[in-house]
Amino acid sequence: MHITSETSSGGVREQLFTLGEIPGVLWTPEGAVGTRPLVLMGHGGGQHKKAPDVLTRARRFVTEGGFAVVAVDVPAHGDRPKVEEYDRIATENQARVTAGEELAPLIAGFQALVARRTVPEWRAVLDAVQRLEHVGAGPVGYWGVSLGCGLGVPFVAAEPRVRAAVLGLGGALASAGDAARITVPVEFLVQWDDERVPRAQSLALFDALGSAEKALHANPGRHGEVPAFELDSTLRFFARHLG
Amino acid sequence: MHITSETSSGGVREQLFTLGEIPGVLWTPEGAVGTRPLVLMGHGGGQHKKAPDVLTRARRFVTEGGFAVVAVDVPAHGDRPKVEEYDRIATENQARVTAGEELAPLIAGFQALVARRTVPEWRAVLDAVQRLEHVGAGPVGYWGVSLGCGLGVPFVAAEPRVRAAVLGLGGALASAGDAARITVPVEFLVQWDDERVPRAQSLALFDALGSAEKALHANPGRHGEVPAFELDSTLRFFARHLG
Repeated sequence: MHITSETSSGGVREQLFTLGEIPGVLWTPEGAVGTRPLVLMGHGGGQHKKAPDVLTRARRFVTEGGFAVVAVDVPAHGDRPKVEEYDRIATENQARVTAGEELAPLIAGFQALVARRTVPEWRAVLDAVQRLEHVGAGPVGYWGVSLGCGLGVPFVAAEPRVRAAVLGLGGALASAGDAARITVPVEFLVQWDDERVPRAQSLALFDALGSAEKALHANPGRHGEVPAFELDSTLRFFARHLG
Repeated sequence: MHITSETSSGGVREQLFTLGEIPGVLWTPEGAVGTRPLVLMGHGGGQHKKAPDVLTRARRFVTEGGFAVVAVDVPAHGDRPKVEEYDRIATENQARVTAGEELAPLIAGFQALVARRTVPEWRAVLDAVQRLEHVGAGPVGYWGVSLGCGLGVPFVAAEPRVRAAVLGLGGALASAGDAARITVPVEFLVQWDDERVPRAQSLALFDALGSAEKALHANPGRHGEVPAFELDSTLRFFARHLG
């Protein structure tokens, strides 16, 4: 793990790093020493590790929760090179949708493919970041919706360090089997008028989660319109389970 | 309105009252003067105005929110006399369920009948309580699940003083029309494994609500097993909309 730059503002220390070919960013409270909860955040499709909503969330987790937050670019996103195979699939999927196929199963299949790379990558990121003195081997949370849910479900299912997860804006098509293996508390976000994920599939993914404690939070609006008060709820959720 | 007794404990003043034939209870912060938000709480079927979960909720609304809270016995509940018509219907419904009819539509029909009495009663209670100096004509919230939802939906639809409502554990059969007339923010509780209200009917009632801001909170468990952290969420919801 190589730290490539470091800045601080408003009480938040930001360290850009690379781990092998993975570019990432770590946010911690300014001046923090010792072990603390760590939240890994997955970004949305077409976004990257420092997308505005990722930054907003990370700053609040750090300043209000005292957490460390880490985000990395998904392959073919942000500072990472294109992946020829993904481009080819995206082009094919576009053609299939134009020809009348449903979008949701195509998205789900694509996310399952990408997860084969991101699950081991994210586990390696946890290994590396938890070796830092100002992060340490504390409890881990995962936050990810949309693409971050499609990649997050297999990650959370595979990674025993994760003690609580916020997921959502995703459906059950590709990941019901992984979802059933998740047993940690989950807060699951649904947009009631989601134009990308059919409501029944969202509810089916929530239903498939093996967790004894899982809370579905559904709000009106489209895929990108999760209301701001859900971030307050997320903070309390992580504070309750990682604090 | 006649105050029939008054006690105080742990920072909460409790005043029992009657308004005509309606027995009620009002909780306010000890020593409170002046106008404050008022939450009307509807109790569950077979319960009463001072049922343990009503008391728990009321004390937290008063001590943490600074609200006034009022609850009254529904006809044929608590300190109120039996209603022959209700007894007759209950007996008939029991027989119909034994004969194989579905329970949910029978419950919904019964609640619609009771609401014809409780809607005007509860409006009169608001009138009376808001004339008290330590309550005043502040913003009003409504909290009610199960029977409290069946009676609450037509009440919230009819009463413009209500600015926010917590509802749930109820289905759409009897009240979809009233639900569509509700436009205030709603937090809506669903128990994912509710043995009394079919999941699809719960979701249909949430769907029917006319509110631009409405949040569905679904948790695993049976009808009576709403997790304790939902009370924290309810408090913040009312603080946001009535505060």
